[in-house]
Amino acid sequence: MSRRADGRADDEMRPVRITRGFTDHPAGSVLVEFGQTRVMCTASVEEGVPRWRRGSGLGWLTAEYAMLPAATHTRSQRESVKGKVGGRTQEISRLIGRSLRACIDLAALGENTIALDCDVLQADGGTRTAAITGAYVALVDAVAFLNERGKLADPQPISCAIAAVSVGVVDGRVRLDLPYEEDSRAEVDMNVVATDAGPLVEIQGTGEGATFARPTLDKMLDLAALGTTRLFEAQREALDTPLRAAD
Amino acid sequence: MSRRADGRADDEMRPVRITRGFTDHPAGSVLVEFGQTRVMCTASVEEGVPRWRRGSGLGWLTAEYAMLPAATHTRSQRESVKGKVGGRTQEISRLIGRSLRACIDLAALGENTIALDCDVLQADGGTRTAAITGAYVALVDAVAFLNERGKLADPQPISCAIAAVSVGVVDGRVRLDLPYEEDSRAEVDMNVVATDAGPLVEIQGTGEGATFARPTLDKMLDLAALGTTRLFEAQREALDTPLRAAD
Amino acid sequence: MSRRADGRADDEMRPVRITRGFTDHPAGSVLVEFGQTRVMCTASVEEGVPRWRRGSGLGWLTAEYAMLPAATHTRSQRESVKGKVGGRTQEISRLIGRSLRACIDLAALGENTIALDCDVLQADGGTRTAAITGAYVALVDAVAFLNERGKLADPQPISCAIAAVSVGVVDGRVRLDLPYEEDSRAEVDMNVVATDAGPLVEIQGTGEGATFARPTLDKMLDLAALGTTRLFEAQREALDTPLRAAD
Amino acid sequence: MSRRADGRADDEMRPVRITRGFTDHPAGSVLVEFGQTRVMCTASVEEGVPRWRRGSGLGWLTAEYAMLPAATHTRSQRESVKGKVGGRTQEISRLIGRSLRACIDLAALGENTIALDCDVLQADGGTRTAAITGAYVALVDAVAFLNERGKLADPQPISCAIAAVSVGVVDGRVRLDLPYEEDSRAEVDMNVVATDAGPLVEIQGTGEGATFARPTLDKMLDLAALGTTRLFEAQREALDTPLRAAD
Amino acid sequence: MSRRADGRADDEMRPVRITRGFTDHPAGSVLVEFGQTRVMCTASVEEGVPRWRRGSGLGWLTAEYAMLPAATHTRSQRESVKGKVGGRTQEISRLIGRSLRACIDLAALGENTIALDCDVLQADGGTRTAAITGAYVALVDAVAFLNERGKLADPQPISCAIAAVSVGVVDGRVRLDLPYEEDSRAEVDMNVVATDAGPLVEIQGTGEGATFARPTLDKMLDLAALGTTRLFEAQREALDTPLRAAD
Amino acid sequence: MSRRADGRADDEMRPVRITRGFTDHPAGSVLVEFGQTRVMCTASVEEGVPRWRRGSGLGWLTAEYAMLPAATHTRSQRESVKGKVGGRTQEISRLIGRSLRACIDLAALGENTIALDCDVLQADGGTRTAAITGAYVALVDAVAFLNERGKLADPQPISCAIAAVSVGVVDGRVRLDLPYEEDSRAEVDMNVVATDAGPLVEIQGTGEGATFARPTLDKMLDLAALGTTRLFEAQREALDTPLRAAD
Repeated sequence: MSRRADGRADDEMRPVRITRGFTDHPAGSVLVEFGQTRVMCTASVEEGVPRWRRGSGLGWLTAEYAMLPAATHTRSQRESVKGKVGGRTQEISRLIGRSLRACIDLAALGENTIALDCDVLQADGGTRTAAITGAYVALVDAVAFLNERGKLADPQPISCAIAAVSVGVVDGRVRLDLPYEEDSRAEVDMNVVATDAGPLVEIQGTGEGATFARPTLDKMLDLAALGTTRLFEAQREALDTPLRAAD
Repeated sequence: MSRRADGRADDEMRPVRITRGFTDHPAGSVLVEFGQTRVMCTASVEEGVPRWRRGSGLGWLTAEYAMLPAATHTRSQRESVKGKVGGRTQEISRLIGRSLRACIDLAALGENTIALDCDVLQADGGTRTAAITGAYVALVDAVAFLNERGKLADPQPISCAIAAVSVGVVDGRVRLDLPYEEDSRAEVDMNVVATDAGPLVEIQGTGEGATFARPTLDKMLDLAALGTTRLFEAQREALDTPLRAAD
Repeated sequence: MSRRADGRADDEMRPVRITRGFTDHPAGSVLVEFGQTRVMCTASVEEGVPRWRRGSGLGWLTAEYAMLPAATHTRSQRESVKGKVGGRTQEISRLIGRSLRACIDLAALGENTIALDCDVLQADGGTRTAAITGAYVALVDAVAFLNERGKLADPQPISCAIAAVSVGVVDGRVRLDLPYEEDSRAEVDMNVVATDAGPLVEIQGTGEGATFARPTLDKMLDLAALGTTRLFEAQREALDTPLRAAD
Repeated sequence: MSRRADGRADDEMRPVRITRGFTDHPAGSVLVEFGQTRVMCTASVEEGVPRWRRGSGLGWLTAEYAMLPAATHTRSQRESVKGKVGGRTQEISRLIGRSLRACIDLAALGENTIALDCDVLQADGGTRTAAITGAYVALVDAVAFLNERGKLADPQPISCAIAAVSVGVVDGRVRLDLPYEEDSRAEVDMNVVATDAGPLVEIQGTGEGATFARPTLDKMLDLAALGTTRLFEAQREALDTPLRAAD
Repeated sequence: MSRRADGRADDEMRPVRITRGFTDHPAGSVLVEFGQTRVMCTASVEEGVPRWRRGSGLGWLTAEYAMLPAATHTRSQRESVKGKVGGRTQEISRLIGRSLRACIDLAALGENTIALDCDVLQADGGTRTAAITGAYVALVDAVAFLNERGKLADPQPISCAIAAVSVGVVDGRVRLDLPYEEDSRAEVDMNVVATDAGPLVEIQGTGEGATFARPTLDKMLDLAALGTTRLFEAQREALDTPLRAAD
Repeated sequence: MSRRADGRADDEMRPVRITRGFTDHPAGSVLVEFGQTRVMCTASVEEGVPRWRRGSGLGWLTAEYAMLPAATHTRSQRESVKGKVGGRTQEISRLIGRSLRACIDLAALGENTIALDCDVLQADGGTRTAAITGAYVALVDAVAFLNERGKLADPQPISCAIAAVSVGVVDGRVRLDLPYEEDSRAEVDMNVVATDAGPLVEIQGTGEGATFARPTLDKMLDLAALGTTRLFEAQREALDTPLRAAD
C-alpha cells in the first residue's frame, strides 16, 4: 500500500494531543491537536437558558465554532467585521452542539447553560471533528466543576464519550483523518460522530462533485470506527492526568 | 405491521405530485408535493458567475431555500425582517446546491449561473427532500431552455437524476418519508440524496438525543433506496408530459 | 377606442380569481390573481400585541409584503440574503396594514394580532392592489376562525369590504388595472384603496417624471371606482362559496 | 368659523421662513421653517451615478430624510444605532427624491448626482412637506453652483418650482398645514406635491382609521393649492435675496 | 511669530459662541460654535437606565455623536444607510459620555438617563471638543429642568464644569484649537478634556505618522489649559444669560 | 512601600513572554504574555490595498483586535453572533493600527497590505498594550518574510520598535502594568505607546469617575517609560532567538 504525503497509512490517524487547563477562566479549557490542526475548546457555565426553554427546569448546551482569521493558509475575513456568521460556521456550530447534547442529561443541570466555544487557532483539515473531540473533554471538566460546587441534580450526567473523525475517498482510496491537502481534493468526504459505547450520533457524507456506492460507505464507516477508538483512548488519557493547579 | 397515523406502511411514500410550468417567468418552475408538503422550485438563468469563479470559463449552480412565514403550523418570523438568514435555512440551501451540482457538468454552461429557489408554501415534514426532488425537474427545464437558445457547449450536461427522501426511527420502527407529526418525535432522522444510477450523493443522519447502530443505518439506507426509486419515476412522468404553452 | 396590448378596453379589469383555502395551516389563506399577477395572502392569528400596545386591551393587525425571487421577469435578490428589507417592500407592507386596519374594530380581538402575509408568486403589475384585495378575504376567514372559537368580543368586527386597484395614464390615455408592460412606461400611476360603502381609504398618485392636472385625477378616480366595484363582487363570490374541508 | 389652537384659520399656513446659505460646505444649504418645524436641506454634488445608471450619460438626483433624535417631543432612537433605516424614513426619502426629479432635466447634469439631505432639527408636523419645499431651493442653488463652473449641458435644467403641503380633516373640518397637535389626531391626512405651473406631482391621502368621500378629497385639494401658492411665493422671495458671501 | 492662515496667534482660540434654547423639545438644547465648526448638543431625559444598571438606584448619562452627511467638505455617507456606526463615531460618542460623567453625581438622578446628542451641522476641525464643551451647557440646563420638577435627590449634582480643546503640532509649531486645514496636516494631534477646578479628565495624544517628545507634550498641555480657561468663561456667560421663553 | 496583590512593586512589570512562530500559516505569528494576559498576534500579507489608497503605489497596514468569548472571567458574547463590532473593539483595533503605522515606511511595501490580527486568548488587564507589543514582533517577522522574497522596495522599512504599557492610579498610588484586579478599580487609567528611540506615539489617559492633576500625569509617564524599556528588551531577546523551522 502506497503511503500518504505525510507518511501515514490509509487507516492511520494523525498524532492527537489533548491539553487540559489550556486557559484559566472557563470551567473547562482544552487545546486539541490533530496534527497541525489546533482548536481551543472551552466550556463556560452560564446561568439561565434560552427563552424558549425557560420554566422547563431543564438545562441547555450550546456551541459556537469559529476560525481565527490567520488560521487558514490564506487569511480569511473576520465574521464580526462582515457583520454576519457564514453558513459553514453556523452548520458546524449546530453540529457540535447536537453531537455533545447526545451524551449529557440536561435535566441534571437545572436551568443553566453550558456554552462550548471552539476557536480554530490553526486549520489543517478536520477542524470540526477535532472540535467535537476536544469539546467533549472540556465538557467533562465543566461538569466536574459544577459537581464540586453542588450544582448538579445528578452527579453523573454524562452517559458516554463523544468523538468525531473525518474519512474520505482520495485518489480512489478510502482514507482516515484527512489533512487539508487531502480534504481539498477528496472525491467523497464524510464526518462521523460516535459514542464510545458503539452507536453513532451523526454521519454526514458528501460526494464532492462525485457520488459513492454503499460498499464505499461501509468501508468509510469501518475506518471511522478505528479512528474514534483511537480518539476515545486519547480523551481518557487526558482526563486521567491530574489538571495542573491554576498559577 | 401496525399502520402509521396516515395509514401508510413503514416503507411507503406519501403521494407525490410534480407540476411543471407552475409560474411563467423563470426558465424552470415546478410545484412539488410530498403529501401536504408543497414547495415551489424555480430555476433562473443569470449571466455571470460569483467573483471567485470569474475567468474560469465554468458556470455555477446555486440554491436558496426559504420558508414562507405561514407555511408552518405556527407562523414563523420572516428572515428578511430579522435581517439575517438562520442557520437551518443556510444549511438546507447549501445542501440543495451541493446535491444538484452533482448531476450537472458546469463547464457546459459557460460563465452563467443557474439559481434554484425553493420556497416552501406549506410545510409538513420533508421540505428539504421535496425541494431537492423538485429542483431537479426545474433544472432539467432550465437546461432545455438554454439548449433551445443554443447557449450550451454540451447539449446534454445532466448526467443523472437526483432525488432525496427522509427516513427515520419513530416509535422504534424504521420509517420512510416522515411527515411533521413523525419527524418532530423521531429518535433518528436521516436525509438521503441519491442518483438514479444507484450511488449516493449525500447522507445526513442524526440521532436526536439518541444514537443509532450500524444495522439501523443499513435498514434506513434500504428504505431510502425504495423511496428514491419511487421519486425517480415521478420525475420521469412529469418530464414526459408536454409542458403547457404559456397563456 | 383602440384596444390595449392584451385586448382590454381602457376601463376593463384583467380576469380576477380568488381561491380560498389555498393552504391549510393559517386561519385564512387565499390565492388572488389579477391576470398573470398571483399573490398568496394569509392571515395568521398570534397571541399578544406589539410592545407599545400592551396593556391597552386592543388587538393589532399587521402586514408583510414580499416578492419571491423568481416572481419577476428577471430574478431579484432575496431580501433575507441582502440582510435588509428594501424601501419599496416596507412601503407596500405599511400600505397593506393601514388599508386593512380601516375595516376592522381592533378592540374586538382583545390583545391578539392578525398577521397578514402577502407573498407574490408571480408579478405582472398591480401586486400591491391584488395583495390588499386578497388579504381582505383572508382576513374575513381569520375572523370567522376566531369567532368559531369564541375569541371575539364582537362577532362582527369587520365594518366594510376593502379592495384596491391601480389606474394610470399610459400613451396619454387613462387606463384601469395596469399590467407590468403598461405600468413600466406609465406617465402617471395611482393606487386607490376603497371601501364597498363608497368612501376611499387611501390614494397614492405619482407622476413618474411627469405631472398631472386635476381633471386627469378625477378621471382616474372614476375608473378606479369601476374597478373596485368589480373587485367587491369577486370577493363576495369567493366568500359565498363554501370553503372545502381540509383533506 | 372657530379658530384653530394656534389661532390660524382653516385655510391658513403657519409662518414660513426659508434661509439660504445656512451652512457653507454644500452647493446648496437651506433652513426651512413651517412654524416650529425646522428642516436643514442641503444639496451636494457628487461625481458619478448609481451603478444601474452608469454609461447612460444621464445624471441622477437622490434624497435622504432623517430626524435628529431630539427633534421630536420624546427622544427617538438613532437609526444608525438601530442599524437600519425605518420604513417611514425610507418612504419619505423616496417621496422627496421622486418629487424633485419631476422638475429637473437629469440629462443636463451629465453623469453626476445631486444628493439632497433633509435633516429635521425640530419636528412639529409637516416635516416631509417642509423638506420638499426647502430641498427645491437648495437644488436651485446647487444647479447655479454647477452652472457657474460650466458643468451643465443645459444652463436651465429646472422646468418648474416644486412645493408640498399637508392638508387633513381634524375635528370634522378640512384644514391646511397641520402641526403635530392636529396631525396626531387627524381623521384624514393628505400630502400634496405640486408645481408652480399648476399640475400635481404626487398626492398621498390616508384615512387614519377613517375613510373619506370624493367631495372631501376635492376640498382638500383646493386648500392644498392655496398652500402651495403661498409656498411658491416664499421660495421666490428667498431666491431673489442675494446669498451672503461665505465668511 | 508668524500668524496662522486665519490670522490667529498660536495660542489663540477661534471665536466661541454658545446659544442656549436652540430647539424647544429637549430639556437642554445648545448650539456651540468654534469658528466654522457648529454642533447642536441636546440633553434629553429618559425614564429608566440600561439593563445592566437596573435595580442599582443610580442614574446614567450616555452620549451619541454624529456628523450630518453634508457637514464635511465632501458629503459623507449616512451611517444609518450604511447600517452601522463607524469606529470614529463610536470612539467620540464614548469619549463624550465618559467626559461628562466625570462632573455629575449619577446617584442624584435616580434610575433615569440623560441622553446627550451631539450632531455636527458643520465641521471645520475640533468637532469632538466643541461637542463636549456644548454638551456640558445642555447638561446644566437639563439638570435645572429636572430640579424644577423636583426629580433630583440632590439639587446640585454637578461638581464642576467640563470643557475640551484640541492642540497640535503643525508646521513644527504647537498650536491651539486646530481648524480642519491645520488638523488634516498636523504632525501631532491631542485632545484635552479638563475641569474648571484644574485637573484633567482625559487626554488623547496621537502622533499622526510622527512621534512626539515629553517637552512637546508639556507645551501642548500648557496651551490646552489656556484654551479651556477661555471655554469655561464662554460657558459661564451663556449660562448667566436668561434662557428665552419658548415662543 | 506596600506590595501589590501579586507581590510586585509599583514600578514593576508582570513577567513578559514573547513566543515567535506560534502558528505556521501567517508571515508573522507571536504569542505575547503579560502575566496571565495572553494575546495571539499574527501578521498576514495580502495583495492590494483598500479602495481609497489604490493607485498611490503605497502599501497599508491595518489591525483587528478581538477577544475570544471565554477569554474573560465571565464569558462574553461573540461579536460575529451579535452582528456588529462593539465600540471598544473598534477603538482598540484603530489604536493598534495607528501605533504600528508609526514605525513602518508604507512606501516600501508597494500596493500590499499587512493585516495584524490580535486575538486575546486570555484577558487579565492590559490586553491592548500586550497586543501592540506583540504585533510589533509579528510585523518584524512579516517584513523579513517579504524581504526574503524580494518584495520590498526598501529592505529596512521599519524605523524603530514600538511597545505599549498601561499605567494607572490605584488605591492612590501610581502603578505600572495593571492586571484586571487593579484595572477594574483604577481611578485613573493611561495607555502609553512609545518608540525605542524615546518619543511617544500615543497617550490615552482617562479619569474613571475621577480627575488627575499634571504632576500625576508626569509620574505616570515616568513609570510608563520604565515599562516600555523593559518591553523593548523582551522584543529584542525574542527577535534575536532563531525562529524554529516549520515542521
